[in-house]
Amino acid sequence: MRTIDWVDGAVVIVDQTRLPHEVVWLRLSTVDALIDAIQRLAVRGAPALGVAGAMGVALAARSSADPSVVAGLVHRIETARPTAVNLARGAGRAAAVLPSAAAALEVALRIRDEEIHSSTEMARLGADLVTSLCGASVRLLTHCNTGALATVVGGTALAVAFELHRRGTLGGVIASETRPLLQGARLTTWELARAGVPHRLAVDSAGPFLMARGEVDAVILGADRICANGDVVNKVGSYAHALGARAAGIPFICVAPESTVDLSTPSGAEVEIEDRGAAEIVGSTAPPGTAAVNPAFDVTPASLVTAIVTDTRVWHP
Amino acid sequence: MRTIDWVDGAVVIVDQTRLPHEVVWLRLSTVDALIDAIQRLAVRGAPALGVAGAMGVALAARSSADPSVVAGLVHRIETARPTAVNLARGAGRAAAVLPSAAAALEVALRIRDEEIHSSTEMARLGADLVTSLCGASVRLLTHCNTGALATVVGGTALAVAFELHRRGTLGGVIASETRPLLQGARLTTWELARAGVPHRLAVDSAGPFLMARGEVDAVILGADRICANGDVVNKVGSYAHALGARAAGIPFICVAPESTVDLSTPSGAEVEIEDRGAAEIVGSTAPPGTAAVNPAFDVTPASLVTAIVTDTRVWHP
Repeated sequence: MRTIDWVDGAVVIVDQTRLPHEVVWLRLSTVDALIDAIQRLAVRGAPALGVAGAMGVALAARSSADPSVVAGLVHRIETARPTAVNLARGAGRAAAVLPSAAAALEVALRIRDEEIHSSTEMARLGADLVTSLCGASVRLLTHCNTGALATVVGGTALAVAFELHRRGTLGGVIASETRPLLQGARLTTWELARAGVPHRLAVDSAGPFLMARGEVDAVILGADRICANGDVVNKVGSYAHALGARAAGIPFICVAPESTVDLSTPSGAEVEIEDRGAAEIVGSTAPPGTAAVNPAFDVTPASLVTAIVTDTRVWHP
Repeated sequence: MRTIDWVDGAVVIVDQTRLPHEVVWLRLSTVDALIDAIQRLAVRGAPALGVAGAMGVALAARSSADPSVVAGLVHRIETARPTAVNLARGAGRAAAVLPSAAAALEVALRIRDEEIHSSTEMARLGADLVTSLCGASVRLLTHCNTGALATVVGGTALAVAFELHRRGTLGGVIASETRPLLQGARLTTWELARAGVPHRLAVDSAGPFLMARGEVDAVILGADRICANGDVVNKVGSYAHALGARAAGIPFICVAPESTVDLSTPSGAEVEIEDRGAAEIVGSTAPPGTAAVNPAFDVTPASLVTAIVTDTRVWHP
């Protein structure tokens, strides 16, 4: 199963907003449909967004012969979610070969294949690292969803868990539910169950306490952007887990493809953090009209990061 | 409005599971009904549970003339929620004057009146402390619900926010939603809105990041139990906020009545932490059958606590 692919002239994705209860495939044949899918998180995860961005440019190039119209569409794709560097980078790589729609599509398919290869490499490097740090029966805590659903196949941080499970050295996974959109509760548990990996779900705020209580050997999660100094921008809650890991004296490991490393951003202080508004968290529980502060991401300073595993290296920032 | 009171031979509570959408009053005239209300959190909050425990003993004493039957009921009340010291202590104080039902009720009403007085004192001491630490326009982050709904009137930590608002020195409150049961989203926002206090709702895991970003001047929350060494046992997520406060260099303040201090418990390591099971967090989002780890409380070590404010003192553990 590929989370995102190009089939017969359109982008085909599994609609992640419908999981775990339904597996619904969406066929996106216009830039508008793709941007809508990106913004409502039907497709999400840094590597998958890179593929989506590039395939979006291919859609744009096929939709109009007017370069200024195409450029406008490309800009809308690049900025559909401001924090995800892979989205803009994937779109930018495909846009660099315009006006040829065929060339843009070729780049998009290459990015897709790169992400598939990259997942295998991250799984191997990450599993080696975790074993060297934590020994032969490791209990992991992870946040958000970094499995196949966040990439094309395999995953980033969750691919490491799958690899450790294949090697017989995984003691289990605690999945942090990841409010407000519950990617951990909905998607990570679904992927872990499909793979037969023993796991338990926990509310996000329990993570640091479970670490303090000795129930976690390492925290492993992904990144939406890695800054030049090693600061990690990832799903909100990552920083709290990093503080918990440091206090408990356990490793905090970030797994993300090299394409997530953004050398043009010196540190997390320069990153615009998307606020996704009140509707996502006020929902049906708080009184109507309640105001909210809803940063989608946070910044974990490099000083709290034990290692960053990419598809080509293990970096100790 | 009193969250809990004794009216015409029964315990009357506002059903907190129905807020914020409905204000429903429950009349509990049997020990079974009271224990059910305690266990499904229709009544909650350490001080309110102390009153509930004592009133429960009055109900028990009125229900049977057989001392062993009454003793059995008292034991069930005392152990209805294992972590909350006030529940067992309130029940124990009323049980000490048995077999007289009238005397038990008198003790229960005295505990109710003590909690009302205690809230006023905590509000005053806490507001003075916050102003001395943070100056004249303070932005607070709070967790769970510590308002009138957790006590009888007023509250503990939230009573401090109300007092600062009355004094004109409150810059606003961020309410942490408090998964899994969302007491912050449902109850704290409701109380803040009723009092006209400016506030925003945030997911729990955003707390430490909002502190790092400079949006919070102090964290203020309650306690279910304070150990002899100053370790604070409170709603899960408190420890993560404490780590965030320490990293951001802002005060972490715990507000709870003196009755919450349990000198017989040397430290948090000796406290049994209630696990409330998978149903609360798996809900309708995770795949059916997903396992969970669901500690209702966590332990914040005294070393991370700037001050504990009770109704009689400010304690720097």
